[in-house]
Amino acid sequence: MPRISNRAKTMPPSPIRKLVPFAEAAKKRGIKVYHLNIGQPDIPTPEVMMNAFRNHEIKVLEYGHSGGLWEYREGLVKYYRRHNIHVSKEEILVTTAGSEAIIFAMLATMDEGDEMIVPEPFYTNYNGFAVEAGVKVVPVTCRAEDGFALPPDAEIRAKITPRTRAIMICNPNNPTGYVYRLEEMNRLRALVLEHDLFFFSDEVYREFVYDGKKHHSVLHLEGLDDRAVLLDSISKRYSACGARVGCLVTHNKDILESALRFGQARLCPPTMEQLAALAAVDTPQSYMDAVFNDYNRRRETVFNALGKIPGVVGQKPSGAFYTVVKLPVDNADRFCRWLLEEFDDKGETVMLAPANGFYATPGLGDDEVRIAFVLNSAAMERSMEILKKALQAYPGKRIA
Amino acid sequence: MPRISNRAKTMPPSPIRKLVPFAEAAKKRGIKVYHLNIGQPDIPTPEVMMNAFRNHEIKVLEYGHSGGLWEYREGLVKYYRRHNIHVSKEEILVTTAGSEAIIFAMLATMDEGDEMIVPEPFYTNYNGFAVEAGVKVVPVTCRAEDGFALPPDAEIRAKITPRTRAIMICNPNNPTGYVYRLEEMNRLRALVLEHDLFFFSDEVYREFVYDGKKHHSVLHLEGLDDRAVLLDSISKRYSACGARVGCLVTHNKDILESALRFGQARLCPPTMEQLAALAAVDTPQSYMDAVFNDYNRRRETVFNALGKIPGVVGQKPSGAFYTVVKLPVDNADRFCRWLLEEFDDKGETVMLAPANGFYATPGLGDDEVRIAFVLNSAAMERSMEILKKALQAYPGKRIA
Repeated sequence: MPRISNRAKTMPPSPIRKLVPFAEAAKKRGIKVYHLNIGQPDIPTPEVMMNAFRNHEIKVLEYGHSGGLWEYREGLVKYYRRHNIHVSKEEILVTTAGSEAIIFAMLATMDEGDEMIVPEPFYTNYNGFAVEAGVKVVPVTCRAEDGFALPPDAEIRAKITPRTRAIMICNPNNPTGYVYRLEEMNRLRALVLEHDLFFFSDEVYREFVYDGKKHHSVLHLEGLDDRAVLLDSISKRYSACGARVGCLVTHNKDILESALRFGQARLCPPTMEQLAALAAVDTPQSYMDAVFNDYNRRRETVFNALGKIPGVVGQKPSGAFYTVVKLPVDNADRFCRWLLEEFDDKGETVMLAPANGFYATPGLGDDEVRIAFVLNSAAMERSMEILKKALQAYPGKRIA
Repeated sequence: MPRISNRAKTMPPSPIRKLVPFAEAAKKRGIKVYHLNIGQPDIPTPEVMMNAFRNHEIKVLEYGHSGGLWEYREGLVKYYRRHNIHVSKEEILVTTAGSEAIIFAMLATMDEGDEMIVPEPFYTNYNGFAVEAGVKVVPVTCRAEDGFALPPDAEIRAKITPRTRAIMICNPNNPTGYVYRLEEMNRLRALVLEHDLFFFSDEVYREFVYDGKKHHSVLHLEGLDDRAVLLDSISKRYSACGARVGCLVTHNKDILESALRFGQARLCPPTMEQLAALAAVDTPQSYMDAVFNDYNRRRETVFNALGKIPGVVGQKPSGAFYTVVKLPVDNADRFCRWLLEEFDDKGETVMLAPANGFYATPGLGDDEVRIAFVLNSAAMERSMEILKKALQAYPGKRIA
């Protein structure tokens, strides 16, 4: 029997999804599972978007342009303008979800063995895309005790080699919720200019920045037209994760032209979803405000509750809808599995994402989990109650 | 300014889409363009499928399972059973179009520099996926004069090296319309067993086999459970190219498990489209029959017309809705561009796909084009009339 590939063996299982079989088994036993492991919000998708599916008059569901439907790209120009990001429709390549935008950015700028510096913890699937693209992710470690702020320049410079091609951030950050300050963005700007690198910024949580802070897009920075690549998705913005519509935005024509050729090979992103995404550009501000307030409330709920659990260490994040916290357990992987296999409180348990999968440095995050604020406040409150009881009952608990 | 990657430079433009700017310019000049360059049929998508979008009751457009919605996979089990292909739902991985199924199959079984033997001419985007995956496509040449039948075993064996990992066919073939005979499938079966290779079969045109011939799926062959991988898509079956729903089907658990990990990185295929694809499984047979008869009629129309154009060489294909024919021109690339830039007949012209992009061997196909039977018979007839006049007017014509 022919063997599978080495990269298939190397390809990491998703830390977000690898425990799914245990969750499925728990549900079969009649246990209710609160899913805080995945960024799948319970927020309704805007009506204007879901109605676009209902009201279509399409007879032939045709291929679209490989770079995305032009009318949708025009809609995106309008959307970005509201966020003070000024691009033309030719500078936007619509992709099948943010995932594809990331892969195309890697393929267009990096060859097998090239390196990309990423602050860790980072969105775990960057690892998977890097394996697919044969690219090496080089982490610079952000620390829980610093609230996951960018480490000093010297630590980043120490990671730059002749194979380094890009620095990539997620801002606001998944999994930490960290929002990069202007000073940090300018430090990264200086570094990419000094070392002739690309600057990739995954900004899918742009809408979710709390405490009156401001979001700084990579495309707000000056003098980076050839280097800045914005990677985006509508999944979180409109609570439309299943739509699989993202985009790559840059002023760099070589990247656009290269990415389009990768795009031509797969022909086009889904047509109906792009039409729905176009409709979503006109989502009422009242919806956006309500969603923002809802996430903000959930964040408060979670941190109020976490503050009352002995041994839990974490800071309230300023963005996105995640937090990474240290738990008083021997091993977060074991604890998360135990929650699904052996624990319940009145027939209910919680599913969390072990955080080690969000680090590239071995050994980091072994006692950390990512919690997603994706359920309504009552469910979040109940989840935190379950977590508290579980931490009391867990055989591998560490007494602080 | 940092440079783009070597693979981006290597990535071939799609021969199907590279002339699009010239077509757009022609349209701006008021010219009507008959698109025979792309497999985008004018056939209406089944009502049952388009109604699935209209009739949804989804409030939150959620992520689905990374391997595809289970209910859709059950629908596919039923669909395949009708084609005498017996698989369980766990043996099906739903992908974002057939493109992703091909990439996942490559990534799961081949490493950088590994080789895959493909009869040429072949679906041009295999080249693009191979660049993305760092895999080398090794062609074995099928000849127009043999009707594009599989060459003798000796020619295939001569291409096998220690790096060869798979043989891949498209059956019925795009671009030639060739349908592999059982004897040919059995020869390939013996070769993959003898040389310990995988056997990939792209069968997206399964429904379109004419002249009473029979389609032989790779999953009909015995003793290949570990080697056979079926790659599929609903794009052509239901004239739903914009839906981007495909799948990978195999009995090999290692491939399924590996491909799922690549799938987890991109989270899931589009949800609404999978629900529509599920509805499409129950497309009435009367629709399928009508579409089949329509394509068959178009094929007759094209070959009746081509037979009357001096110097055109080609055989009527038994499957799919394409043909590759030799034209009496100096260079098909130049001719196809000239059709869009300089020629029109009463304000109308045709767009064809130069066939050299469907070959991996340099120099082959330089005087060949792929014609897609994707327009109704009247439009196909008019297109052939335009082609005939264009061949008379073309400055680079070769007098036979």
